[in-house]
Amino acid sequence: MQETRLDTARIREARRVIDPMFLDTPLYRCEALEPGLGCTVSIKLETANPVRSFKARGTEIAASLLADHGSRAVVCASAGNLGQALAWSGRGRGLDVTVVASRFATVAKLDRIRALDARLELVDGDHEMARERAAAIARYDGIRLLEDSLDIETCEGAATIGLELVDTAPSFDTVLIALGGGALATGVGHVVKELAPEAEVICVQPLGAPALTHSWRRRRVVTTDATNTIADGVAGRYPIPAVLDDLLLVADDAVLVQEASIIAGMRMLLDHAGLVVEPSAALGIAAVLEDRDRFAGRHVVTIVCGSNVDVDAYHRWVGAAPLHRS
Amino acid sequence: MQETRLDTARIREARRVIDPMFLDTPLYRCEALEPGLGCTVSIKLETANPVRSFKARGTEIAASLLADHGSRAVVCASAGNLGQALAWSGRGRGLDVTVVASRFATVAKLDRIRALDARLELVDGDHEMARERAAAIARYDGIRLLEDSLDIETCEGAATIGLELVDTAPSFDTVLIALGGGALATGVGHVVKELAPEAEVICVQPLGAPALTHSWRRRRVVTTDATNTIADGVAGRYPIPAVLDDLLLVADDAVLVQEASIIAGMRMLLDHAGLVVEPSAALGIAAVLEDRDRFAGRHVVTIVCGSNVDVDAYHRWVGAAPLHRS
Repeated sequence: MQETRLDTARIREARRVIDPMFLDTPLYRCEALEPGLGCTVSIKLETANPVRSFKARGTEIAASLLADHGSRAVVCASAGNLGQALAWSGRGRGLDVTVVASRFATVAKLDRIRALDARLELVDGDHEMARERAAAIARYDGIRLLEDSLDIETCEGAATIGLELVDTAPSFDTVLIALGGGALATGVGHVVKELAPEAEVICVQPLGAPALTHSWRRRRVVTTDATNTIADGVAGRYPIPAVLDDLLLVADDAVLVQEASIIAGMRMLLDHAGLVVEPSAALGIAAVLEDRDRFAGRHVVTIVCGSNVDVDAYHRWVGAAPLHRS
Repeated sequence: MQETRLDTARIREARRVIDPMFLDTPLYRCEALEPGLGCTVSIKLETANPVRSFKARGTEIAASLLADHGSRAVVCASAGNLGQALAWSGRGRGLDVTVVASRFATVAKLDRIRALDARLELVDGDHEMARERAAAIARYDGIRLLEDSLDIETCEGAATIGLELVDTAPSFDTVLIALGGGALATGVGHVVKELAPEAEVICVQPLGAPALTHSWRRRRVVTTDATNTIADGVAGRYPIPAVLDDLLLVADDAVLVQEASIIAGMRMLLDHAGLVVEPSAALGIAAVLEDRDRFAGRHVVTIVCGSNVDVDAYHRWVGAAPLHRS
């Protein structure tokens, strides 16, 4: 395969600086999901850790490097999960962490960022405006900007999930990966294509936030004017060229799914797997629901990448209204 | 310490026959729970596996031994989790598994037992009647009875959780363990008391199913006429003398909690940890809620031992009513 920006030996090496709490996460077949999906389904669960998403794998690498080089501060833009993870990783290493987020971001995520002692700045716009503001802060303050999906640490962190997938028998036919900025897809995709090339790498994005999928299909960066999805974790509009280049090398397909399918996926994960997940984490199940024939009889692994939800919104989505809550 | 029926070297050895999928489960601090509880809280999560409880650790050992000895069949009584786990472990080793359960058992548990190809027999009574019937089947058919908490494999399986607790830094002050038949408490308790004796082992049982706690306090077997708790997984009435003997050696305390506290614990785990748990798995949080002063400033580990719930009952308990479900 042509070379991506990632290197598998370096990814294996990176495991050493990640707190083991974030590594070797559960990977298990969930038969209760299978009658409803028509295929063998395994779950790679990235939510059972202090930040409830996979993002700390990358922030552990980034914060470790910063601390090693004597840096004292770092800033990132985040829909919430990267910011929470960077706050966690930075706190343990004495770094001042600033997170810039949209004021429309998931409240639970913002609350956790504050609780982890990070400085939180909200912008009156979407995630792309938060990215601009974070870059401006980095320039003005002369501190490191950690840019999700562009900065190699974020991709390498995600890629450690890929190592765990290919190192664990039995083999699978397809891995379904939530597609946002692209770190998860290019990281996992790189490892799978290098070490288990017979497995299919399918990226899944909401129809309401399709920029990177459109870019992948047209093989050039396509931006959009707005996003419209509950899957806040993957709602970008400006794909990063270098990330698209990698994605073109590792993804076998990129598919778009409807909001109703994401909600149905969340509900299935609750009802049949006992898992509370955020919308982005249900994209894989949504993709199967929208194209059962494609996956019939195959063994798919879906990465359940986060569980940070606002509880009331979650109940609204999965069809249960709050009642008598104290 | 006086000797229990367990042996730590044998427990370490037992890890080898347990499918790694059930081992080295997530252990992580959950800071979002801490403001509400007033202490440092770590979760040992036993639900992210194919049977959604810790019980497969023990059934893997039992089924492996049976298969090694050429046995072809096994029967157990179960409130649902042991039966599901034995069905899973037995299926993979070509064993015929019969599970006897109360017809009032959690429907989701019974459905999974059937789905895993076990023969399910329901009795028109409670779990103690299921135990009698399972013993009768074993005698009549001349097959192995796997008796939870009495049979050493079930305790050794649970004890592997203890190894993972003491082998993982940082240290903790207290481990909170759901108390039912006693396998989890004696297994984990044995290892903790042997390898981390400074840590406190506290068993937690519902006020509505207090037989083993009363027995522990009076140092002799005390039975009850009925149980009245939503925590189906720990609702026994006839403690086993040999298990009580071990529990007297390893438990520092046994406490009883109210149903309202169990429900509040389930709700906290949902709201602040994003975890769906069955009532038994919330007993540890319930114990902290009922006696915050006792745990103030301490580091408690609570074993989240199962997540098999009927979804509608779960929504009723945590205060969200089903609406618009398809």
